[in-house]
Amino acid sequence: MIKAGIIGATGYAGGELVRILLGHKEVEIKWYGSRSYIDKKYAEVYQNMFELVEDSCLDDNIEKLAEEVDVIFTATPQGYLASILTEDILNKVKIIDLSADYRIKDVAIYEKWYKIEHKSPEFIEEAVYGLCEINRDKVRNARLVANPGCYTTCSILTAYPLVKEGLIDPDTLIIDAKSGTSGAGRGAKVPNLYCEVNENMKAYGVTTHRHTPEIEEQLGYAAGHDITVTFTPHLAPMNRGILATEYASLVKKEDGTFPTAAEIRNAYEKYYKKEKFIRVLEEGVCPETKWVEGSNYVDVNFKVDERTGRVIMMGALDNLVKGAAGQAVQNMNLLFGFKESEGLELVPMFP
Amino acid sequence: MIKAGIIGATGYAGGELVRILLGHKEVEIKWYGSRSYIDKKYAEVYQNMFELVEDSCLDDNIEKLAEEVDVIFTATPQGYLASILTEDILNKVKIIDLSADYRIKDVAIYEKWYKIEHKSPEFIEEAVYGLCEINRDKVRNARLVANPGCYTTCSILTAYPLVKEGLIDPDTLIIDAKSGTSGAGRGAKVPNLYCEVNENMKAYGVTTHRHTPEIEEQLGYAAGHDITVTFTPHLAPMNRGILATEYASLVKKEDGTFPTAAEIRNAYEKYYKKEKFIRVLEEGVCPETKWVEGSNYVDVNFKVDERTGRVIMMGALDNLVKGAAGQAVQNMNLLFGFKESEGLELVPMFP
Amino acid sequence: MIKAGIIGATGYAGGELVRILLGHKEVEIKWYGSRSYIDKKYAEVYQNMFELVEDSCLDDNIEKLAEEVDVIFTATPQGYLASILTEDILNKVKIIDLSADYRIKDVAIYEKWYKIEHKSPEFIEEAVYGLCEINRDKVRNARLVANPGCYTTCSILTAYPLVKEGLIDPDTLIIDAKSGTSGAGRGAKVPNLYCEVNENMKAYGVTTHRHTPEIEEQLGYAAGHDITVTFTPHLAPMNRGILATEYASLVKKEDGTFPTAAEIRNAYEKYYKKEKFIRVLEEGVCPETKWVEGSNYVDVNFKVDERTGRVIMMGALDNLVKGAAGQAVQNMNLLFGFKESEGLELVPMFP
Amino acid sequence: MIKAGIIGATGYAGGELVRILLGHKEVEIKWYGSRSYIDKKYAEVYQNMFELVEDSCLDDNIEKLAEEVDVIFTATPQGYLASILTEDILNKVKIIDLSADYRIKDVAIYEKWYKIEHKSPEFIEEAVYGLCEINRDKVRNARLVANPGCYTTCSILTAYPLVKEGLIDPDTLIIDAKSGTSGAGRGAKVPNLYCEVNENMKAYGVTTHRHTPEIEEQLGYAAGHDITVTFTPHLAPMNRGILATEYASLVKKEDGTFPTAAEIRNAYEKYYKKEKFIRVLEEGVCPETKWVEGSNYVDVNFKVDERTGRVIMMGALDNLVKGAAGQAVQNMNLLFGFKESEGLELVPMFP
Repeated sequence: MIKAGIIGATGYAGGELVRILLGHKEVEIKWYGSRSYIDKKYAEVYQNMFELVEDSCLDDNIEKLAEEVDVIFTATPQGYLASILTEDILNKVKIIDLSADYRIKDVAIYEKWYKIEHKSPEFIEEAVYGLCEINRDKVRNARLVANPGCYTTCSILTAYPLVKEGLIDPDTLIIDAKSGTSGAGRGAKVPNLYCEVNENMKAYGVTTHRHTPEIEEQLGYAAGHDITVTFTPHLAPMNRGILATEYASLVKKEDGTFPTAAEIRNAYEKYYKKEKFIRVLEEGVCPETKWVEGSNYVDVNFKVDERTGRVIMMGALDNLVKGAAGQAVQNMNLLFGFKESEGLELVPMFP
Repeated sequence: MIKAGIIGATGYAGGELVRILLGHKEVEIKWYGSRSYIDKKYAEVYQNMFELVEDSCLDDNIEKLAEEVDVIFTATPQGYLASILTEDILNKVKIIDLSADYRIKDVAIYEKWYKIEHKSPEFIEEAVYGLCEINRDKVRNARLVANPGCYTTCSILTAYPLVKEGLIDPDTLIIDAKSGTSGAGRGAKVPNLYCEVNENMKAYGVTTHRHTPEIEEQLGYAAGHDITVTFTPHLAPMNRGILATEYASLVKKEDGTFPTAAEIRNAYEKYYKKEKFIRVLEEGVCPETKWVEGSNYVDVNFKVDERTGRVIMMGALDNLVKGAAGQAVQNMNLLFGFKESEGLELVPMFP
Repeated sequence: MIKAGIIGATGYAGGELVRILLGHKEVEIKWYGSRSYIDKKYAEVYQNMFELVEDSCLDDNIEKLAEEVDVIFTATPQGYLASILTEDILNKVKIIDLSADYRIKDVAIYEKWYKIEHKSPEFIEEAVYGLCEINRDKVRNARLVANPGCYTTCSILTAYPLVKEGLIDPDTLIIDAKSGTSGAGRGAKVPNLYCEVNENMKAYGVTTHRHTPEIEEQLGYAAGHDITVTFTPHLAPMNRGILATEYASLVKKEDGTFPTAAEIRNAYEKYYKKEKFIRVLEEGVCPETKWVEGSNYVDVNFKVDERTGRVIMMGALDNLVKGAAGQAVQNMNLLFGFKESEGLELVPMFP
Repeated sequence: MIKAGIIGATGYAGGELVRILLGHKEVEIKWYGSRSYIDKKYAEVYQNMFELVEDSCLDDNIEKLAEEVDVIFTATPQGYLASILTEDILNKVKIIDLSADYRIKDVAIYEKWYKIEHKSPEFIEEAVYGLCEINRDKVRNARLVANPGCYTTCSILTAYPLVKEGLIDPDTLIIDAKSGTSGAGRGAKVPNLYCEVNENMKAYGVTTHRHTPEIEEQLGYAAGHDITVTFTPHLAPMNRGILATEYASLVKKEDGTFPTAAEIRNAYEKYYKKEKFIRVLEEGVCPETKWVEGSNYVDVNFKVDERTGRVIMMGALDNLVKGAAGQAVQNMNLLFGFKESEGLELVPMFP
């Protein structure tokens, strides 16, 4: 039984961490950190936790926390962890950071896209990008895990096998992603009001969304060289879920023909067949966000468009689970040698 | 490890049974019965079950099923189980019926409200009404459990302590209930289409809804005499959840004063304090369906309206869990001597 | 062609006033007042108005406004108009107030329920309660119209004929109302965020909602004596619409029998047959909010519950139209002698 | 005053035609055709029309109808109009066909994508593709107007100026479109049930959607040569609205540089500045479906992605208005010489 602390426990990702950890046999939550609700009972902030969580919210004292727990989850605004992290803390406790602070290796790129100065670039090198299915072994030995973004997890996993196997030209990759509104957080802002989001679809952050360089870096590793992609996020009128529809040109084989659907399927199976949390759907079945809701699954599939020589790849996940808290717990399981799926055997809820 | 069969496994309640039983340590599902989808893979009907359920749907052969399993759940249309049930079957297997066939003791009332002939009234007497918190002991020894309706579970539990303690006049009871659309089932009907339900609220079945006599019978037992209530269901644009808002006149005490809020709270605590799945909320907190979504909880609370001498009682549950499949599993746990909450420690999902 | 000014033009009710007035042949909007968005183009606040409204938002200078326009709509917080209104202003301009400041004749009741001091009680007496179908003649000669609340319009019109005709006992009246979220306004508050409202139903303001005394006062006039009602509002996951489900005991006739459905229908037709904006639905048809969306209609109907001696009355309207801006325009039409339905012949939009 | 008949008046597009035509000064609806609801009052099928439409539904007798009205709208399944249209009918009456029967000039392409035989290819040549802003002059003199599809109207108008001006390479065009559920029609099918659509996003018809060849044909005319595009439709949990996000590579100018944002904006303004129903939004504003709901507007905008040499174009419309019934009425206005915007000055409804 290990002890966990959460900094930022009252955001939606923090709330989901609590939901998942309550069902985890090896962990006890010892610290519900929330600057906005100090001393307020956690179950008053999230009434679903009534009679399940008796604790009150605490301030964000990471030094104290590092003494008391084995792992800290930081579900905090960009720049926060970078501004308080020290070698001393990392020597005492494992950290799984749900913010973007240590996801991008090139600090200049981080600072350009996030428009903030990085306060502790010295830890970037050692931070492990916690996309479990790709970096499983590295995660196991990490002190600091950079938990991937919601859009990025979905976008990368949907295209990874085809990039890795050289079946598509990564520079033609266009990612059109649709997200539920919990991805926008629990901040009280007019654009996130019910009446503004409901019955509405819109793109936002076009050409400027911060998950773009994260996708490019990780898929660049798979490609073996730097790549540039177009990524367009959209806000959809639903609580949870990300659907990524991804377009890329197939790379002709030496004989001048395009890869077949069977060859593409083989690539997906090569990387994902043994992965519990990635489901390659059967031919002709398009992923739907509702089929993974509440679970740690990513559902992926594809369709070859012979007329244009493109492949359309599709991936769906729950942005709060595999896109945030679920993957964070999966990383924790790797860090502490627990069964990787412990606490994550959540059956998707339908309807 | 017991074996379970589900007849009607592809309706929404059937699907929820599967979701819950997959997380239950003592049960294995052996039979996914579905007349509409015979031989089709269950996971093709409910893609959320992809890679979780490998079975295909089977026809509804209850005799064969009775040989093969320890418990049968029937999530079937009204009248179906009554038309096929036999003593022989009941001798072999426990049955938990999610339809209304054995909920009402007076067959004439059943036939009047349901407008169908009851084909096996001989089993009504022995059937136990499976409202676990009220009838726990009777359930343990039953062969046949009549699993309560979704509206009725919510309506009864919200008012039960006040009726039982004589604090309200049950004949003044007015129940205004709002239900999510999964309660209408998965049948392809125009009124259940997305565009008909979305952005819409309506009452239906006004004065004629079939859950009325079920509420009257059960609360009548609590009152110690026959009662008559007004029950009005409404369709709300959401997938899951029932909210019951209930109105009744307080009964004056001998000294001519009305019961106080403290006395009413005491009544709730008397009956529910030890109940894991009934949460009496703190003063001033109104139940919300979202706070119980996906879980087996019923949240209840009340407010005294001193100006009118009435009390407003409120209850919220997930119609597919405590209102159907969850309570069915709770009954199964009682029947087989498992821990009552086994498989049901589902943390409500928010948002 | 008259000139209109709107104070509070960037709230949802203000936005709806703009939408309706743009289609009104006799009015030109000269002033888009909005303290929050001074100098910002109105169409940047409400992009639906792009290329339809070129004006920018102005501060709320009511004295200046009174010089420039013929009518002022105030869609402002409670207490605001009362704090700035003067005899001088009323001598220059007609005012239609969408707040509650002049709705309640007894200033003590206003101050008790609204918990604010009334700054200009001297105008309460002359203010006309602008429920057009009931007070049409008085409105025509008013200087100051108190536009009714959204819940109140729906609640009153649904029960009015039965109270007026003495068919129900008004002190048994229980109103269970469900509202879309636009009724909560455009303020950036956590409880109004998409993820908090979506997939959720809850009651709020139980026994304390401010529309209660307004309903009691108006229905008291119809009854001919003071009455007390129970009113419970609920928040529903939809943008627009109020559904009121109302319960009351029928009053026995001299012969000891209850009023029949036909007699009740006659009462509705007596008062509403000639009313363009009140539609008494055909027998057995329950009002649905979606059927009136975007229009100025109130749909009403009822069902007699012979078992309990009660009648269930139901009414549906669009809270932003008949519940706010539409009724305000209807009042304006009365004030200026325009055709009462001018600008309001809006066909409900479905789906 | 002309007379209109609608065949298929009880589908969602038919219902929207009725809503719009009721507000049109020059038209009277004489025939509400609906095979499914013959002799049923129209207002019982669409309760929003209660007291607005007194007529009952009639069978689909096009010969009789041609004698009685000036214009027929056919909102019917694919292949229906083609199977009944004759020269005699076209000599008597104007026809605006909301189905796809006469949209595609190459009958082989029609038959390949729609998988039905075309029964009257002899009328394809003369049919005018009713995309008003592009084909205005041809529509004026037509007997038979092929009203464009919902996705196609949005997809074409969003990209048209850039294709026409040669600023983008049309063969790189990728269209990712998201539609509200009314586009799926009012048929009672499980995938269109509330609980299946709500809280869900999915792609469908990937590489095979029938609107693909329609887009290719029309944008091919603009390009001056045949083109091939990738079109992927998605179902979104909302009643109305289509958002098209379109991606294409910019064509380098002779000097080797890419077109600037200013040049691209100029192209949009060149074609759309005078168009009442196409709004080119201000820089940085992304179209949202909610801002055009209920209206005939298409909102378009774009963003240059300098990193990839692509432009992201975005367009939003109401699929039932500009995407169906509104455009049909716009075509009728052109056919009969009415003001083009008559009956269509609908202010978008928000929220």
